[in-house]
Amino acid sequence: MAAFSQSEIDALGARAEAMVNELALISAEPDRLVRLFLSPEHRRAADQVAAWMREAGLEASEDALGTVRGRLEGQGKRLLIGSHIDTVIDAGKYDGPFGVIASILAAEHFDRAGTRLPLGIDVLAFGDEEGSRFPVTLSSSKACAGIFPTENLQLADRDGMTLAEALKAYGKSPDDIPRAAYKPGEAAAYVEVHIEQGPVLEVKNQPLGVVTAINGQAHLKIEFIGEAGHAGTVPMSMRRDALAGAAEAMLLGERLARESSGEVVATVGHIAVAPGATNVIPARVAVIFDIRSGSDTAHAALIEALRGGIQEIAERRQLRLTVTTPRQVGVTPCQPAIQDQLAEAIRALGAEPLRLGSGAGHDGQAMATLCPIGMLFVRCRGGISHNPLEYASPRDLGLAVAALIGFIERFDPKKLA
Amino acid sequence: MAAFSQSEIDALGARAEAMVNELALISAEPDRLVRLFLSPEHRRAADQVAAWMREAGLEASEDALGTVRGRLEGQGKRLLIGSHIDTVIDAGKYDGPFGVIASILAAEHFDRAGTRLPLGIDVLAFGDEEGSRFPVTLSSSKACAGIFPTENLQLADRDGMTLAEALKAYGKSPDDIPRAAYKPGEAAAYVEVHIEQGPVLEVKNQPLGVVTAINGQAHLKIEFIGEAGHAGTVPMSMRRDALAGAAEAMLLGERLARESSGEVVATVGHIAVAPGATNVIPARVAVIFDIRSGSDTAHAALIEALRGGIQEIAERRQLRLTVTTPRQVGVTPCQPAIQDQLAEAIRALGAEPLRLGSGAGHDGQAMATLCPIGMLFVRCRGGISHNPLEYASPRDLGLAVAALIGFIERFDPKKLA
Repeated sequence: MAAFSQSEIDALGARAEAMVNELALISAEPDRLVRLFLSPEHRRAADQVAAWMREAGLEASEDALGTVRGRLEGQGKRLLIGSHIDTVIDAGKYDGPFGVIASILAAEHFDRAGTRLPLGIDVLAFGDEEGSRFPVTLSSSKACAGIFPTENLQLADRDGMTLAEALKAYGKSPDDIPRAAYKPGEAAAYVEVHIEQGPVLEVKNQPLGVVTAINGQAHLKIEFIGEAGHAGTVPMSMRRDALAGAAEAMLLGERLARESSGEVVATVGHIAVAPGATNVIPARVAVIFDIRSGSDTAHAALIEALRGGIQEIAERRQLRLTVTTPRQVGVTPCQPAIQDQLAEAIRALGAEPLRLGSGAGHDGQAMATLCPIGMLFVRCRGGISHNPLEYASPRDLGLAVAALIGFIERFDPKKLA
Repeated sequence: MAAFSQSEIDALGARAEAMVNELALISAEPDRLVRLFLSPEHRRAADQVAAWMREAGLEASEDALGTVRGRLEGQGKRLLIGSHIDTVIDAGKYDGPFGVIASILAAEHFDRAGTRLPLGIDVLAFGDEEGSRFPVTLSSSKACAGIFPTENLQLADRDGMTLAEALKAYGKSPDDIPRAAYKPGEAAAYVEVHIEQGPVLEVKNQPLGVVTAINGQAHLKIEFIGEAGHAGTVPMSMRRDALAGAAEAMLLGERLARESSGEVVATVGHIAVAPGATNVIPARVAVIFDIRSGSDTAHAALIEALRGGIQEIAERRQLRLTVTTPRQVGVTPCQPAIQDQLAEAIRALGAEPLRLGSGAGHDGQAMATLCPIGMLFVRCRGGISHNPLEYASPRDLGLAVAALIGFIERFDPKKLA
């Protein structure tokens, strides 16, 4: 086992931070970080990542969805490690890129050391985790997992370009997508390092954490339909105010989530009000509840309670409802043995391996259909993410790379069964 | 006193309805009624109204704000009657135009009858009651009342054209605005006929009503400032959700208005949420409470209770607040003697003169600074207004014209003191 001194960890952190900063220079806009799937910036970032992989001693290639792959030869099954290089609009620079960079630095460690590993390593740099360009997410990891839905090729971006057209413009052929899939049994596991994007590690004063599961997510879309009217002339007792009904429903969602004791979070981030004039009683209001949980049971129970409560609110207020669920993804558990091996690696660095759920979605949700998965979280300042203020300290980045190296040394596919 | 037979009332109603329909053909859009202040459609509508005035035996002219004036000669003070010919966007056809048309038909009655009235009549067709073009209302009646704020000339419409520029394009000169004002003592009263725009007369099964006051109105603008965060990763207990705070405040406003037993109405018709993404906890939410009452005391009490409650909500939720009052207009009472004379005219037609407040604003709010005012309300279907479904029956329109004629016959300025 490698034992890292503090100065070695600091050196790893400094290198990781420099690479994060270098990749952050590649953006579609001068004043903010925007790197969309299959864009010219994606091309430049992919080339940079491939160059780093080759410098690290990996054999670099690209699959049909633009995923950059860095191969370190080895016997038997392959351990997949990586993350994504696309971003949201006005992104932070750590979300995604750091996981790719940590994987390259870890693979380089074994290449330089000439360590004979019991299995090969593939470093994966996915390009469509955020879903910022097309109305889908995880296209690239779904292709690796062999579950890419061919019909998604016809989905268009804001400019009307389909995914199929964008792939061709990127120099890829949709015909090659089946070949991007790993064969059954070829992958031992997929492990990703990522910033937490939440405040838990900071609050608990720990640099690293072991993810227990990627939370399930539902979008519950409710439209309240009442009756428009003049804000000055319709008595309160004769109103059917759709916004007042929605306000009551939002508070109910908040209360149910609070009462779940941390098991479920529920959020309304956007609300559409029609006709939307100061002096008109709202006739139609649409809200989307974003509801997430690490427990499918708690998730389903909250959604059911919320739907029932909203039904009661609508009846009492004489509002009509339309209810749809445009998104519904179950919990993706992280493999317990991988969790334990990650925890051991963290403990070996003198830190406490806090276990926590991932509230955000990740490529692991797709990869879990192919093989067991695991995730290592890195503390980020204030829990802030999807924001230029996103920050993780070089020391924490160095610890994360060291923990990933320690995990790979400890990794035993035979223990996963 | 004129005594109207049912067939005479029906004839007046049929004429009024035909004129309402004719004016409704003048619109900026083929599929909905849009007639903005100082627009080409305003020009065409003003020309039509002037032509009707001349046919009715009135001397037609236009003032510096485009108000069309039809003069019937007479001794002493002048009785002002009228309404407005501008509309909201996607308007109904009765709101405004019917009051102008009723005034023309009433003046014509006296011209044809050769009745020697104890005072002259001015029919006024204002052009800026709705405030749909510039961010102000009542510009034209304010000019007549001598209270037009010169600084408003620099306010711009959505295309960036200022009111001063629009007036010049309409062939008017801002220099003439002072001459649009009635001289002190020149006007005996201003009386307006208008559809109710609310459901009270319909519910009470009465065609006409006497307005006791135009309700006071406040716009209380509240901005809630919390903290943005990832909808999946920030625990409920660590959130500062600005939208949840706004939802609680909206329900408080509704509850306080309901508890006022009909004295106050409170509405939130529009809400702005930032950043406004489904998966982001809202950081900033702005709402405007539109609060109206026929009692300045009840109005002030509700606003104070709402402000106090919102302060408490914000403190409990650790939200910052900005609170402004972009609009604050007190109650405008209708002159009791004018109310009584309107009631007598209604009773003479065999109807019950229901007294009610006006929840909507009207040109009378400006004219009340010049002279005593009165308003006659006409029943409209379902209380619907500002909507193409707006409707008043020809019979009710005829009754309203007859009541206005009866009022003018009874009108005695000496009783107003």
